[in-house]
Amino acid sequence: MALVENKHAAGRAPAGAAVLRRHVTTAIRLAVMQELAEGGYGRLSIEAVARRAGVGKTTVYRRWSSKLEMVVEIIAEVAGRRLPVPDTGSLHGDLELIMNAVVAALAHPLASQIVPDLLAEAARTPEIAEALLATLRAHQRDIAAAVVGRAVGRGELPADADAESAVDFIVGPLYWRLAVLRAPLPDGYVGRQVQAVIEVLSGQAAPVPSG
Amino acid sequence: MALVENKHAAGRAPAGAAVLRRHVTTAIRLAVMQELAEGGYGRLSIEAVARRAGVGKTTVYRRWSSKLEMVVEIIAEVAGRRLPVPDTGSLHGDLELIMNAVVAALAHPLASQIVPDLLAEAARTPEIAEALLATLRAHQRDIAAAVVGRAVGRGELPADADAESAVDFIVGPLYWRLAVLRAPLPDGYVGRQVQAVIEVLSGQAAPVPSG
Repeated sequence: MALVENKHAAGRAPAGAAVLRRHVTTAIRLAVMQELAEGGYGRLSIEAVARRAGVGKTTVYRRWSSKLEMVVEIIAEVAGRRLPVPDTGSLHGDLELIMNAVVAALAHPLASQIVPDLLAEAARTPEIAEALLATLRAHQRDIAAAVVGRAVGRGELPADADAESAVDFIVGPLYWRLAVLRAPLPDGYVGRQVQAVIEVLSGQAAPVPSG
Repeated sequence: MALVENKHAAGRAPAGAAVLRRHVTTAIRLAVMQELAEGGYGRLSIEAVARRAGVGKTTVYRRWSSKLEMVVEIIAEVAGRRLPVPDTGSLHGDLELIMNAVVAALAHPLASQIVPDLLAEAARTPEIAEALLATLRAHQRDIAAAVVGRAVGRGELPADADAESAVDFIVGPLYWRLAVLRAPLPDGYVGRQVQAVIEVLSGQAAPVPSG
Protein backbone atom coordinates (compact mmCIF):
# COMPACT_ATOMS: atom_id res chain seq x y z
CA MET A 1 0.00 0.00 0.00
CA ALA A 2 2.86 2.34 0.79
CA LEU A 3 3.89 1.88 -2.82
CA VAL A 4 0.65 3.18 -4.29
CA GLU A 5 0.32 5.99 -1.79
CA ASN A 6 3.80 7.22 -2.67
CA LYS A 7 3.15 7.06 -6.38
CA HIS A 8 0.19 9.38 -6.09
CA ALA A 9 1.56 11.59 -3.33
CA ALA A 10 4.24 12.58 -5.82
CA GLY A 11 1.70 14.62 -7.81
CA ARG A 12 -0.33 17.35 -6.15
CA ALA A 13 -2.17 17.33 -2.84
CA PRO A 14 -5.35 15.23 -2.89
CA ALA A 15 -8.51 17.36 -2.70
CA GLY A 16 -11.59 15.74 -1.26
CA ALA A 17 -13.26 12.35 -1.03
CA ALA A 18 -13.15 11.64 -4.79
CA VAL A 19 -9.36 11.63 -4.89
CA LEU A 20 -9.26 9.52 -1.76
CA ARG A 21 -11.60 6.98 -3.34
CA ARG A 22 -9.43 6.86 -6.43
CA HIS A 23 -6.34 6.19 -4.32
CA VAL A 24 -8.14 3.33 -2.62
CA THR A 25 -9.23 1.81 -5.96
CA THR A 26 -5.67 2.01 -7.26
CA ALA A 27 -4.35 0.35 -4.10
CA ILE A 28 -6.89 -2.46 -4.39
CA ARG A 29 -6.11 -2.96 -8.08
CA LEU A 30 -2.40 -3.28 -7.35
CA ALA A 31 -3.12 -5.67 -4.48
CA VAL A 32 -5.24 -7.87 -6.77
CA MET A 33 -2.47 -8.01 -9.39
CA GLN A 34 0.11 -8.94 -6.76
CA GLU A 35 -2.11 -11.62 -5.22
CA LEU A 36 -2.82 -13.08 -8.68
CA ALA A 37 0.86 -13.14 -9.56
CA GLU A 38 1.87 -14.80 -6.28
CA GLY A 39 -0.87 -17.30 -5.59
CA GLY A 40 -3.16 -17.37 -8.61
CA TYR A 41 -6.92 -16.92 -8.88
CA GLY A 42 -7.80 -20.07 -6.95
CA ARG A 43 -5.92 -18.97 -3.83
CA LEU A 44 -6.92 -15.28 -4.01
CA SER A 45 -9.29 -14.07 -1.28
CA ILE A 46 -11.02 -10.72 -0.76
CA GLU A 47 -9.55 -10.75 2.78
CA ALA A 48 -5.99 -11.00 1.49
CA VAL A 49 -6.60 -8.27 -1.10
CA ALA A 50 -8.07 -5.94 1.53
CA ARG A 51 -5.21 -6.63 3.94
CA ARG A 52 -2.58 -5.97 1.27
CA ALA A 53 -4.31 -2.76 0.12
CA GLY A 54 -4.65 -1.58 3.72
CA VAL A 55 -8.44 -1.27 3.59
CA GLY A 56 -11.43 -3.07 5.10
CA LYS A 57 -13.26 -5.91 3.32
CA THR A 58 -16.41 -3.78 2.97
CA THR A 59 -14.41 -1.19 1.04
CA VAL A 60 -13.65 -3.87 -1.54
CA TYR A 61 -17.23 -5.17 -1.63
CA ARG A 62 -18.55 -1.64 -2.19
CA ARG A 63 -16.70 -1.65 -5.52
CA TRP A 64 -17.23 -5.21 -6.74
CA SER A 65 -19.87 -7.70 -5.68
CA SER A 66 -17.65 -10.80 -6.09
CA LYS A 67 -14.10 -11.99 -6.54
CA LEU A 68 -14.85 -12.99 -10.13
CA GLU A 69 -16.28 -9.57 -11.05
CA MET A 70 -13.35 -7.80 -9.41
CA VAL A 71 -10.65 -9.86 -11.14
CA VAL A 72 -12.23 -9.78 -14.60
CA GLU A 73 -12.78 -6.01 -14.48
CA ILE A 74 -9.25 -5.28 -13.29
CA ILE A 75 -7.61 -7.63 -15.81
CA ALA A 76 -9.66 -6.19 -18.67
CA GLU A 77 -8.71 -2.68 -17.62
CA VAL A 78 -5.00 -3.39 -17.33
CA ALA A 79 -4.93 -5.37 -20.58
CA GLY A 80 -6.93 -2.66 -22.36
CA ARG A 81 -4.57 0.11 -21.35
CA ARG A 82 -1.66 -1.77 -22.85
CA LEU A 83 -2.71 -1.94 -26.49
CA PRO A 84 -2.90 1.25 -28.58
CA VAL A 85 -5.24 1.81 -31.56
CA PRO A 86 -2.63 3.11 -34.00
CA ASP A 87 -3.20 5.36 -37.00
CA THR A 88 0.13 5.71 -38.81
CA GLY A 89 -1.39 6.16 -42.29
CA SER A 90 -0.48 2.68 -43.62
CA LEU A 91 -1.54 -0.86 -42.79
CA HIS A 92 2.10 -1.90 -42.58
CA GLY A 93 2.86 0.86 -40.06
CA ASP A 94 -0.23 0.17 -37.96
CA LEU A 95 0.50 -3.56 -37.79
CA GLU A 96 4.12 -2.99 -36.87
CA LEU A 97 3.07 -0.67 -34.03
CA ILE A 98 0.46 -3.10 -32.69
CA MET A 99 2.86 -6.03 -32.80
CA ASN A 100 5.58 -4.16 -30.98
CA ALA A 101 2.99 -3.24 -28.33
CA VAL A 102 2.00 -6.92 -28.06
CA VAL A 103 5.67 -7.88 -27.64
CA ALA A 104 5.98 -5.31 -24.83
CA ALA A 105 2.73 -6.43 -23.19
CA LEU A 106 3.85 -10.07 -23.24
CA ALA A 107 6.94 -9.12 -21.23
CA HIS A 108 4.67 -7.98 -18.37
CA PRO A 109 3.95 -10.46 -15.50
CA LEU A 110 0.30 -10.13 -16.51
CA ALA A 111 0.99 -12.19 -19.62
CA SER A 112 3.54 -14.67 -18.32
CA GLN A 113 2.02 -15.38 -14.93
CA ILE A 114 -1.48 -14.02 -14.37
CA VAL A 115 -3.13 -14.81 -17.70
CA PRO A 116 -2.02 -18.50 -17.91
CA ASP A 117 -3.40 -18.95 -14.42
CA LEU A 118 -6.74 -17.36 -15.27
CA LEU A 119 -6.95 -19.44 -18.46
CA ALA A 120 -6.38 -22.58 -16.41
CA GLU A 121 -9.17 -21.52 -14.03
CA ALA A 122 -11.36 -20.65 -17.01
CA ALA A 123 -11.00 -24.24 -18.24
CA ARG A 124 -12.73 -25.35 -15.03
CA THR A 125 -15.07 -22.41 -14.36
CA PRO A 126 -17.40 -21.40 -17.21
CA GLU A 127 -18.22 -18.00 -15.63
CA ILE A 128 -14.55 -16.99 -15.73
CA ALA A 129 -14.21 -18.20 -19.31
CA GLU A 130 -17.27 -16.23 -20.41
CA ALA A 131 -16.47 -12.99 -18.61
CA LEU A 132 -12.74 -12.93 -19.29
CA LEU A 133 -12.78 -14.16 -22.87
CA ALA A 134 -15.72 -12.03 -23.97
CA THR A 135 -13.88 -8.94 -22.72
CA LEU A 136 -10.60 -10.00 -24.33
CA ARG A 137 -12.23 -10.86 -27.65
CA ALA A 138 -14.28 -7.66 -27.83
CA HIS A 139 -11.27 -5.51 -27.02
CA GLN A 140 -9.02 -7.09 -29.66
CA ARG A 141 -11.76 -7.16 -32.27
CA ASP A 142 -12.33 -3.42 -31.80
CA ILE A 143 -8.67 -2.60 -32.40
CA ALA A 144 -8.42 -4.91 -35.42
CA ALA A 145 -11.67 -3.59 -36.90
CA ALA A 146 -10.41 0.01 -36.65
CA VAL A 147 -7.06 -0.78 -38.30
CA VAL A 148 -8.53 -3.01 -41.01
CA GLY A 149 -11.38 -0.55 -41.65
CA ARG A 150 -8.94 2.27 -42.34
CA ALA A 151 -6.82 0.01 -44.60
CA VAL A 152 -9.95 -0.91 -46.60
CA GLY A 153 -10.75 2.81 -46.87
CA ARG A 154 -7.27 3.48 -48.28
CA GLY A 155 -7.68 0.63 -50.81
CA GLU A 156 -4.93 -1.45 -49.17
CA LEU A 157 -7.26 -4.37 -48.44
CA PRO A 158 -10.37 -5.88 -50.02
CA ALA A 159 -13.68 -4.78 -48.47
CA ASP A 160 -14.33 -8.27 -47.04
CA ALA A 161 -10.99 -8.51 -45.17
CA ASP A 162 -11.57 -10.55 -42.00
CA ALA A 163 -10.37 -8.44 -39.07
CA GLU A 164 -11.14 -11.14 -36.52
CA SER A 165 -8.82 -13.70 -38.14
CA ALA A 166 -6.13 -11.03 -38.36
CA VAL A 167 -6.10 -10.85 -34.55
CA ASP A 168 -5.06 -14.52 -34.37
CA PHE A 169 -2.08 -13.85 -36.64
CA ILE A 170 -1.10 -10.70 -34.77
CA VAL A 171 -1.35 -12.12 -31.25
CA GLY A 172 -1.12 -15.93 -31.79
CA PRO A 173 2.51 -16.39 -32.96
CA LEU A 174 3.84 -13.87 -30.42
CA TYR A 175 1.79 -15.38 -27.58
CA TRP A 176 2.93 -18.88 -28.51
CA ARG A 177 6.61 -17.96 -28.71
CA LEU A 178 6.90 -15.48 -25.83
CA ALA A 179 4.23 -16.54 -23.31
CA VAL A 180 3.91 -20.28 -23.94
CA LEU A 181 7.35 -21.45 -25.11
CA ARG A 182 9.18 -18.56 -23.38
CA ALA A 183 11.61 -18.46 -26.29
CA PRO A 184 13.42 -15.31 -27.51
CA LEU A 185 12.29 -13.38 -30.62
CA PRO A 186 14.71 -13.72 -33.58
CA ASP A 187 15.81 -10.64 -35.58
CA GLY A 188 13.33 -9.53 -38.21
CA TYR A 189 10.52 -11.59 -36.72
CA VAL A 190 7.94 -8.79 -36.47
CA GLY A 191 8.68 -7.66 -40.03
CA ARG A 192 7.99 -11.15 -41.42
CA GLN A 193 4.91 -11.37 -39.25
CA VAL A 194 3.55 -8.09 -40.67
CA GLN A 195 3.92 -9.57 -44.18
CA ALA A 196 2.10 -12.72 -43.12
CA VAL A 197 -0.80 -10.79 -41.59
CA ILE A 198 -1.17 -8.69 -44.75
CA GLU A 199 -1.17 -11.95 -46.73
CA VAL A 200 -3.94 -13.40 -44.55
CA LEU A 201 -6.00 -10.22 -44.86
CA SER A 202 -5.47 -9.89 -48.62
CA GLY A 203 -5.99 -13.50 -49.69
CA GLN A 204 -9.56 -13.85 -48.51
CA ALA A 205 -11.58 -16.17 -50.75
CA ALA A 206 -8.86 -17.60 -52.96
CA PRO A 207 -5.05 -17.36 -52.88
CA VAL A 208 -4.00 -14.11 -54.58
CA PRO A 209 -0.46 -12.76 -55.13
CA SER A 210 0.57 -10.42 -52.35
CA GLY A 211 2.17 -7.06 -53.05
CA MET B 1 12.28 -46.09 -17.90
CA ALA B 2 8.97 -47.91 -18.32
CA LEU B 3 8.43 -45.67 -21.29
CA VAL B 4 11.52 -46.83 -23.12
CA GLU B 5 10.66 -50.42 -22.31
CA ASN B 6 7.21 -50.04 -23.90
CA LYS B 7 8.39 -48.20 -26.94
CA HIS B 8 10.87 -50.89 -27.81
CA ALA B 9 8.58 -53.78 -26.99
CA ALA B 10 6.05 -52.44 -29.53
CA GLY B 11 7.46 -54.62 -32.34
CA ARG B 12 6.87 -58.21 -31.31
CA ALA B 13 4.24 -59.73 -29.04
CA PRO B 14 5.43 -59.56 -25.45
CA ALA B 15 4.33 -62.35 -23.12
CA GLY B 16 3.57 -62.60 -19.42
CA ALA B 17 5.07 -60.02 -17.13
CA ALA B 18 5.86 -57.55 -19.94
CA VAL B 19 2.21 -57.33 -21.03
CA LEU B 20 1.15 -56.91 -17.43
CA ARG B 21 3.66 -54.10 -16.95
CA ARG B 22 2.40 -52.35 -20.06
CA HIS B 23 -1.19 -52.58 -18.81
CA VAL B 24 -0.13 -51.05 -15.52
CA THR B 25 1.73 -48.21 -17.26
CA THR B 26 -1.33 -47.49 -19.43
CA ALA B 27 -3.58 -47.43 -16.36
CA ILE B 28 -1.23 -45.04 -14.56
CA ARG B 29 -0.97 -42.80 -17.60
CA LEU B 30 -4.76 -42.58 -17.88
CA ALA B 31 -5.04 -41.88 -14.15
CA VAL B 32 -2.52 -39.03 -14.43
CA MET B 33 -4.44 -37.46 -17.32
CA GLN B 34 -7.71 -37.69 -15.40
CA GLU B 35 -6.21 -36.24 -12.23
CA LEU B 36 -4.66 -33.38 -14.22
CA ALA B 37 -7.95 -32.61 -15.96
CA GLU B 38 -9.94 -32.63 -12.73
CA GLY B 39 -7.71 -30.97 -10.18
CA GLY B 40 -4.66 -29.66 -12.02
CA TYR B 41 -0.95 -30.22 -11.40
CA GLY B 42 -0.90 -28.45 -8.05
CA ARG B 43 -3.48 -30.75 -6.51
CA LEU B 44 -2.20 -33.98 -8.14
CA SER B 45 -0.62 -36.52 -5.79
CA ILE B 46 1.12 -39.84 -6.45
CA GLU B 47 -1.28 -41.40 -3.89
CA ALA B 48 -4.34 -40.28 -5.84
CA VAL B 49 -2.84 -41.50 -9.13
CA ALA B 50 -2.00 -44.90 -7.63
CA ARG B 51 -5.48 -45.23 -6.11
CA ARG B 52 -7.19 -44.35 -9.37
CA ALA B 53 -4.99 -46.74 -11.37
CA GLY B 54 -5.57 -49.50 -8.83
CA VAL B 55 -1.89 -49.98 -8.03
CA GLY B 56 0.42 -49.35 -5.09
CA LYS B 57 2.47 -46.17 -4.71
CA THR B 58 5.73 -48.09 -5.14
CA THR B 59 4.52 -49.30 -8.55
CA VAL B 60 4.32 -45.67 -9.63
CA TYR B 61 7.68 -44.76 -8.08
CA ARG B 62 9.33 -47.71 -9.86
CA ARG B 63 8.49 -45.98 -13.15
CA TRP B 64 9.11 -42.30 -12.31
CA SER B 65 11.16 -40.83 -9.49
CA SER B 66 8.94 -37.75 -9.00
CA LYS B 67 5.58 -36.22 -9.79
CA LEU B 68 7.26 -33.70 -12.10
CA GLU B 69 9.13 -36.36 -14.09
CA MET B 70 5.97 -38.46 -14.38
CA VAL B 71 3.75 -35.62 -15.61
CA VAL B 72 6.24 -34.17 -18.08
CA GLU B 73 7.01 -37.57 -19.62
CA ILE B 74 3.35 -38.53 -19.97
CA ILE B 75 2.32 -35.15 -21.42
CA ALA B 76 5.19 -35.20 -23.91
CA GLU B 77 4.24 -38.71 -25.00
CA VAL B 78 0.54 -37.94 -25.46
CA ALA B 79 1.26 -34.65 -27.24
CA GLY B 80 3.87 -36.37 -29.42
CA ARG B 81 1.53 -39.10 -30.57
CA ARG B 82 -0.98 -36.53 -31.79
CA LEU B 83 1.11 -34.75 -34.42
CA PRO B 84 2.11 -36.55 -37.61
CA VAL B 85 5.23 -35.84 -39.69
CA PRO B 86 3.53 -35.64 -43.08
CA ASP B 87 5.10 -36.24 -46.50
CA THR B 88 2.44 -35.44 -49.13
CA GLY B 89 4.90 -34.29 -51.79
CA SER B 90 4.18 -30.55 -51.48
CA LEU B 91 4.71 -27.90 -48.81
CA HIS B 92 1.10 -26.82 -49.17
CA GLY B 93 -0.16 -30.37 -48.61
CA ASP B 94 2.17 -31.02 -45.67
CA LEU B 95 1.16 -27.77 -43.94
CA GLU B 96 -2.54 -28.45 -44.46
CA LEU B 97 -2.17 -31.90 -42.92
CA ILE B 98 -0.24 -30.59 -39.91
CA MET B 99 -2.70 -27.78 -39.27
CA ASN B 100 -5.69 -30.07 -39.41
CA ALA B 101 -3.91 -32.33 -36.92
CA VAL B 102 -3.28 -29.31 -34.67
CA VAL B 103 -6.98 -28.40 -34.89
CA ALA B 104 -7.90 -31.95 -33.86
CA ALA B 105 -5.34 -31.99 -31.04
CA LEU B 106 -6.65 -28.69 -29.67
CA ALA B 107 -10.12 -30.23 -29.31
CA HIS B 108 -8.67 -32.76 -26.82
CA PRO B 109 -9.00 -31.98 -23.08
CA LEU B 110 -5.19 -32.04 -23.02
CA ALA B 111 -5.11 -28.70 -24.83
CA SER B 112 -8.10 -26.96 -23.30
CA GLN B 113 -7.65 -28.05 -19.71
CA ILE B 114 -4.40 -29.77 -18.89
CA VAL B 115 -1.92 -27.62 -20.82
CA PRO B 116 -3.20 -24.19 -19.56
CA ASP B 117 -2.89 -25.55 -16.05
CA LEU B 118 0.66 -26.80 -16.57
CA LEU B 119 1.62 -23.48 -18.18
CA ALA B 120 0.27 -21.65 -15.14
CA GLU B 121 2.34 -23.92 -12.87
CA ALA B 122 5.34 -23.44 -15.14
CA ALA B 123 5.08 -19.67 -14.57
CA ARG B 124 5.75 -20.35 -10.86
CA THR B 125 8.01 -23.42 -11.06
CA PRO B 126 11.11 -23.12 -13.26
CA GLU B 127 11.68 -26.92 -13.33
CA ILE B 128 8.28 -27.49 -14.91
CA ALA B 129 8.87 -24.73 -17.43
CA GLU B 130 12.26 -26.16 -18.42
CA ALA B 131 11.19 -29.79 -18.68
CA LEU B 132 7.84 -29.24 -20.33
CA LEU B 133 8.82 -26.49 -22.73
CA ALA B 134 12.09 -28.07 -23.82
CA THR B 135 10.19 -31.22 -24.76
CA LEU B 136 7.44 -29.29 -26.53
CA ARG B 137 9.90 -27.10 -28.43
CA ALA B 138 12.13 -29.99 -29.52
CA HIS B 139 9.17 -32.03 -30.71
CA GLN B 140 7.66 -29.23 -32.80
CA ARG B 141 11.03 -28.15 -34.16
CA ASP B 142 11.71 -31.69 -35.39
CA ILE B 143 8.44 -31.85 -37.31
CA ALA B 144 8.90 -28.37 -38.82
CA ALA B 145 12.52 -29.09 -39.73
CA ALA B 146 11.50 -32.26 -41.60
CA VAL B 147 8.71 -30.53 -43.55
CA VAL B 148 10.74 -27.40 -44.33
CA GLY B 149 13.81 -29.47 -45.23
CA ARG B 150 11.87 -31.43 -47.84
CA ALA B 151 10.34 -28.23 -49.24
CA VAL B 152 13.82 -26.71 -49.57
CA GLY B 153 14.92 -29.90 -51.35
CA ARG B 154 12.04 -29.56 -53.83
CA GLY B 155 12.95 -25.89 -54.46
CA GLU B 156 9.72 -24.61 -52.88
CA LEU B 157 11.54 -22.59 -50.22
CA PRO B 158 14.86 -20.76 -49.95
CA ALA B 159 17.65 -22.71 -48.25
CA ASP B 160 17.61 -20.40 -45.22
CA ALA B 161 13.87 -20.81 -44.47
CA ASP B 162 13.39 -20.57 -40.70
CA ALA B 163 11.56 -23.72 -39.60
CA GLU B 164 11.37 -22.59 -35.99
CA SER B 165 9.44 -19.41 -36.77
CA ALA B 166 7.11 -21.44 -38.98
CA VAL B 167 6.01 -23.39 -35.90
CA ASP B 168 4.70 -20.17 -34.31
CA PHE B 169 2.55 -19.47 -37.37
CA ILE B 170 1.30 -23.04 -37.57
CA VAL B 171 0.45 -23.48 -33.90
CA GLY B 172 0.10 -19.87 -32.62
CA PRO B 173 -3.06 -18.65 -34.39
CA LEU B 174 -4.88 -21.96 -33.85
CA TYR B 175 -3.84 -22.12 -30.20
CA TRP B 176 -4.91 -18.52 -29.64
CA ARG B 177 -8.31 -18.97 -31.28
CA LEU B 178 -9.22 -22.49 -30.14
CA ALA B 179 -7.48 -22.95 -26.78
CA VAL B 180 -7.25 -19.37 -25.44
CA LEU B 181 -10.30 -17.55 -26.84
CA ARG B 182 -12.32 -20.78 -27.28
CA ALA B 183 -13.80 -19.31 -30.46
CA PRO B 184 -14.97 -21.37 -33.46
CA LEU B 185 -12.88 -21.68 -36.64
CA PRO B 186 -14.38 -19.81 -39.65
CA ASP B 187 -14.62 -21.50 -43.08
CA GLY B 188 -11.42 -21.37 -45.12
CA TYR B 189 -9.31 -20.48 -42.08
CA VAL B 190 -6.72 -23.25 -42.47
CA GLY B 191 -6.35 -22.49 -46.20
CA ARG B 192 -5.52 -18.83 -45.49
CA GLN B 193 -3.20 -19.89 -42.70
CA VAL B 194 -1.28 -22.19 -45.06
CA GLN B 195 -0.73 -19.20 -47.38
CA ALA B 196 0.48 -17.08 -44.45
CA VAL B 197 2.95 -19.72 -43.29
CA ILE B 198 4.36 -20.10 -46.82
CA GLU B 199 4.69 -16.29 -46.91
CA VAL B 200 6.60 -16.28 -43.62
CA LEU B 201 8.89 -19.07 -44.80
CA SER B 202 9.50 -17.50 -48.22
CA GLY B 203 10.08 -13.88 -47.21
CA GLN B 204 13.10 -14.45 -45.05
CA ALA B 205 15.55 -11.56 -45.02
CA ALA B 206 13.57 -8.85 -46.83
CA PRO B 207 9.97 -8.74 -48.00
CA VAL B 208 9.77 -10.53 -51.35
CA PRO B 209 6.71 -11.16 -53.53
CA SER B 210 5.16 -14.55 -52.74
CA GLY B 211 4.12 -17.02 -55.41
